[in-house]
Amino acid sequence: MANITLLFNPNNVLLVGSSKIQEQIGMTSPQLFESVLYNMRKYYEGTTYTIDTEDARGIRAYEDIPNTPDLAVIMLPPNASILQSERCAAIGVKVLVIIAGGYKPDQRKALAKLKEEYGIRILGPNTIMGVINTTNGLNTTFERDVMPIKGGISVISQSGGVGACLLDWACSYGIGVAKFAFMGDKIDVNDIDLLRYFRDDADTQTICLYMEGIEDGRSFIEAAQEVVRKKPILALKGGVTAEAARRVLSHTASIAGSDTIVNAAFRKAGIIRAIDEEDLLNMAIALVQQPPLSGDNIAIVSNVGGPAILAADAVIRNQLRLAKLSEVTIQKIERRCPGVDVVNPIDLIADARAERYSIVLDAVLSDPSVDGLMVINMLKSCFFEPEDAIAIAEVAKQHPDKPIVDVPAGGEDFMRILEVLRSTGIPTYNTPEKAARALGALRQHSKIHERLKSQR
Amino acid sequence: MANITLLFNPNNVLLVGSSKIQEQIGMTSPQLFESVLYNMRKYYEGTTYTIDTEDARGIRAYEDIPNTPDLAVIMLPPNASILQSERCAAIGVKVLVIIAGGYKPDQRKALAKLKEEYGIRILGPNTIMGVINTTNGLNTTFERDVMPIKGGISVISQSGGVGACLLDWACSYGIGVAKFAFMGDKIDVNDIDLLRYFRDDADTQTICLYMEGIEDGRSFIEAAQEVVRKKPILALKGGVTAEAARRVLSHTASIAGSDTIVNAAFRKAGIIRAIDEEDLLNMAIALVQQPPLSGDNIAIVSNVGGPAILAADAVIRNQLRLAKLSEVTIQKIERRCPGVDVVNPIDLIADARAERYSIVLDAVLSDPSVDGLMVINMLKSCFFEPEDAIAIAEVAKQHPDKPIVDVPAGGEDFMRILEVLRSTGIPTYNTPEKAARALGALRQHSKIHERLKSQR
Repeated sequence: MANITLLFNPNNVLLVGSSKIQEQIGMTSPQLFESVLYNMRKYYEGTTYTIDTEDARGIRAYEDIPNTPDLAVIMLPPNASILQSERCAAIGVKVLVIIAGGYKPDQRKALAKLKEEYGIRILGPNTIMGVINTTNGLNTTFERDVMPIKGGISVISQSGGVGACLLDWACSYGIGVAKFAFMGDKIDVNDIDLLRYFRDDADTQTICLYMEGIEDGRSFIEAAQEVVRKKPILALKGGVTAEAARRVLSHTASIAGSDTIVNAAFRKAGIIRAIDEEDLLNMAIALVQQPPLSGDNIAIVSNVGGPAILAADAVIRNQLRLAKLSEVTIQKIERRCPGVDVVNPIDLIADARAERYSIVLDAVLSDPSVDGLMVINMLKSCFFEPEDAIAIAEVAKQHPDKPIVDVPAGGEDFMRILEVLRSTGIPTYNTPEKAARALGALRQHSKIHERLKSQR
Repeated sequence: MANITLLFNPNNVLLVGSSKIQEQIGMTSPQLFESVLYNMRKYYEGTTYTIDTEDARGIRAYEDIPNTPDLAVIMLPPNASILQSERCAAIGVKVLVIIAGGYKPDQRKALAKLKEEYGIRILGPNTIMGVINTTNGLNTTFERDVMPIKGGISVISQSGGVGACLLDWACSYGIGVAKFAFMGDKIDVNDIDLLRYFRDDADTQTICLYMEGIEDGRSFIEAAQEVVRKKPILALKGGVTAEAARRVLSHTASIAGSDTIVNAAFRKAGIIRAIDEEDLLNMAIALVQQPPLSGDNIAIVSNVGGPAILAADAVIRNQLRLAKLSEVTIQKIERRCPGVDVVNPIDLIADARAERYSIVLDAVLSDPSVDGLMVINMLKSCFFEPEDAIAIAEVAKQHPDKPIVDVPAGGEDFMRILEVLRSTGIPTYNTPEKAARALGALRQHSKIHERLKSQR
């Protein structure tokens, strides 16, 4: 575990690449090498050393490095990577990140041998993007100026491409990230190592996993159960159909399982399953920002009728229920907001602004028959202004034990409300369906917890 | 039908509102009135007359209008609306759009009586947003400066809120719209009238419908079948769960049906069903821009491995198949792109740019065993540049009979590629799942067509 810590928290990092080698088809190129140097210089707080294998003095430079680097990032084709990896191991580097792929079985073996001989840990090969740690600015990706903001989500991706998709989402929508790890071919560091590390990592609150195949299913399930007791795991599984699974074999050299097997394994492991990249992050945001959903009963409060009806359908479809409001709540709202028809979903009508929302949300969240809340606040066709959304966050603070999710309309309305709510910890979604799935994930997490506790 | 034409294509429009009445809870307000005037002046090409019921001369002004307006938009509370509607009918107005809701049964009756007496057609009450026609700039919505670009999608929404959501999406993502109609309480003009009108409307290529309840199921199904022979209908149904259906009754005074009933009715009618607002428009874009999908066999061409595997899963999940490429195609690609492993999904590897895409896409689309294509072109973690996407549109032109959808990563990558592809007619989605659903809709449409043809 000590070495996995150094994967994310090295004191010194060595970057090994070539200013000349340009693979015909593949990832090694002077541009990639330059871009990683650029990002590391821009973001990383520790010390960075660089070796360019094309520079005769560069090759000898291993001995000249003043302090032994904890972590080396190798950006070279397979044979050159193996050669440089051995030199790194020889001078005492503790962890290697191997960017490029295309390894043949004997080349994999050569890398694996280094681990045995030197005890060095290896992430990859074929990680493509390596690692990101938003706390110390470690960023071995080659996308210039791409760095997510700090937050509680840590991502493990077997695929560089899916990881890069998730990184693109996170950066575009301001989703807070703790760490990113791109596993690639998993010759050494694997899902289990990273899950365990994130379980104990103080900055990680929720773990997102993109996985294609798994070597040892039983160990994975046991490890996941252990992690889930402390932090939720959400997973997106690639290669669940026979057709896609065939492709997985050539992509990351692992065996994928059928949809049914995956569902059963995830259920046992206590992992919440996502539909696509967006769904994975949507659910993660809720799990980081909101308390667990302790029961099935959801209240919907909206300034429009139709979307509230779609929200009610979505809540039911996600195995939740519409809360039956108590008489006390109904009377409280009727007294203070005459004209509002107090049936869940509650339609506050199009002219509702911060004040009416505050009164009704507070009444609803005070009702013991309500476990969680979906708020809909459209701008278009309504009188609601973006700054009115602050009121939702203010009421939420008075009810920290009940989760709240928010839904404006999907385009410009969504972006404007997101701008206001982003820093308040109220997750914001662009359709009621996505918000209901987020509430569903909060409920699942709470049920998984109860089940694992009873199994202890 | 003539009068429904005037709903979208009036020569003169009369706007009737009040500069004083502000309902406590409801939609009538001087601001709404002012905003509708603002939009009509800004966008509408025809002549606009205005009557402010607070202005003594305004009330008498009906006689002063130089030409009888074809269409009147009434922005007043129920009793005032009924009064002004009658005056409109008396001077020969052909169609009324009644914005505000809150009508009691006897008030509804009073409106319905106008139709009987004068033959006037009525959209609403409770339409909230009224109508939009991007061809002549007619825009009775009260969202200032909100006007979608011209295009082939026409929207019918029973709910003002859901319609406004769709309008927000369309404007934010530059989705081309022909017409918008917000039906509200459907005292007169209903789904069937509008479906039939859009069937014959030259600007409408695909119809999107948000519906809560339907009065006469059999007539609706028959009418839809008739329309679908000419143009696809996509529908989002609100109130499919018992809980939400209860709310529908108070929202738009109609009866909603269960999920199973809805599915059966839609299947019979030839309507393609959407999951949420985003899904509705995502599928509509594909139906407007791409040819029908004549078979199940999809090729996937990608510059990243993981997302291509998710795409393969998504294709299968949406009742499609992965195309088995012919030997000719495989050899053609292997000869011209050494290093590319020609198995569907085809991984072009991260350094693929316009040229490699062009070669492979052309080969794949020339293959008779391929019916449709999903292209994945990420920017992050790859060498692809936004302008390379033009090559996809160029190849597509050579194969106009096979549909193509495109998937970059979901955040900034998506917006950058959308910017390039928007005008080319290649639909762009932010996850492979959504792209696969769009292909699924193209396939469904083609199957529905075949079935309805055989029933003739």
